[in-house]
Amino acid sequence: MEVAIVTVGDELLAGRTTNTNAAWLCERLDGQGVAVGRVTTVPDRVADIARVVNEYRAEYDAVIVTGGIGPTHDDVTMDGVAAALGRPLAEDERVLEWLEEEGGYAREELTEGTAAIPKGARPLHNRVGVAPGAVLEGVYVLPGVPSEMRGMFETVAPEFRGEAVHREVVVADEPESALLDRLEALRERFDVGVGSYPGESVRIEIRGADETVVGEAAAWLTERVESPQR
Amino acid sequence: MEVAIVTVGDELLAGRTTNTNAAWLCERLDGQGVAVGRVTTVPDRVADIARVVNEYRAEYDAVIVTGGIGPTHDDVTMDGVAAALGRPLAEDERVLEWLEEEGGYAREELTEGTAAIPKGARPLHNRVGVAPGAVLEGVYVLPGVPSEMRGMFETVAPEFRGEAVHREVVVADEPESALLDRLEALRERFDVGVGSYPGESVRIEIRGADETVVGEAAAWLTERVESPQR
Repeated sequence: MEVAIVTVGDELLAGRTTNTNAAWLCERLDGQGVAVGRVTTVPDRVADIARVVNEYRAEYDAVIVTGGIGPTHDDVTMDGVAAALGRPLAEDERVLEWLEEEGGYAREELTEGTAAIPKGARPLHNRVGVAPGAVLEGVYVLPGVPSEMRGMFETVAPEFRGEAVHREVVVADEPESALLDRLEALRERFDVGVGSYPGESVRIEIRGADETVVGEAAAWLTERVESPQR
Repeated sequence: MEVAIVTVGDELLAGRTTNTNAAWLCERLDGQGVAVGRVTTVPDRVADIARVVNEYRAEYDAVIVTGGIGPTHDDVTMDGVAAALGRPLAEDERVLEWLEEEGGYAREELTEGTAAIPKGARPLHNRVGVAPGAVLEGVYVLPGVPSEMRGMFETVAPEFRGEAVHREVVVADEPESALLDRLEALRERFDVGVGSYPGESVRIEIRGADETVVGEAAAWLTERVESPQR
């Protein structure tokens, strides 16, 4: 299973918010063996949202869209997703009931559009905030407020399942260029993927479907590199 | 001027790294009046990098690509960008000279490809690390290590210039839905953009090209909302 994540918001594109929602979702999905093929941030504009959602819907098994849901004029994500799916928005009776029963809102007091999701979508309950989420045709719409997004994702998490990937990290206190021969030998010897991430030291990540092989590969490499702080 | 940012790296898509490079670049560009239209993270795969770079090159004034440059097998960004631009990679004499003179590397010791950039590109000096950056046809390739990326961006920052945007933030200690009428009145009365970001309080951002108008709009709104902690 491979998914794409679309994060909506001018505040992300202006650098006033770091995209921690994307990192959180990627980590959760990775933990469930689901690969993320793209993470894309788009502005609060209906046409941009619709276009990217449509492109990714055609290429990935699911698309998770976060941010830009709610009652204000710059919350246009539901409009964008509805446009991508060729559906109108419609007030959802289940959402209205949640808002009345749990939120204590009277229907006539609610801002127009508060309970609107693409027609035919399954609403997702927001236990932390007001704005509902929605799922339709593999597109999952979640809030942008991190606590609301996380809570709502947990309710759909079982729908994202892939093959488990095992990982081990070996840290080497050597220049990355000095390690090339050993990394190549590692890849030849073991059926694993290898990523190399330089920083103060070099983090070498070994990943594969077979936990034993990943463990053996990590042990093999650990014996052959300089460990930090010895 | 509107640009797109492409961040390359499996580690980002697996949620093991938060994309602070994107936030930093967005903030710097915003400060120079340059809009960012997309931020997209792609895997360490040549075809994915080439495809997204090509798509954004056609749509934006410039594309900034970070991450995945260096000597290891998973550093394929230069290959992806070269493919997008229809050029081969070639060792660059200026880069070899930097590495010899400042890095103290002998040419024959350097890993093959260390000095390779797309043929015809302008190399960008990496004063913090080894891997060079490159600029060609509006595509800027920068390292993924944050200190290297930041240092290198500063050398090209003067090439990114847009119209200054002024911003003021008003914080309201009220539910977002209660503020809708006042936000609408604000937008009608003043020639400004308005963003509303709920959290513990609601952050309302007012932006516009005219600093005086933005200031007047912020003052008008401040008088009409509940400020926190009064």
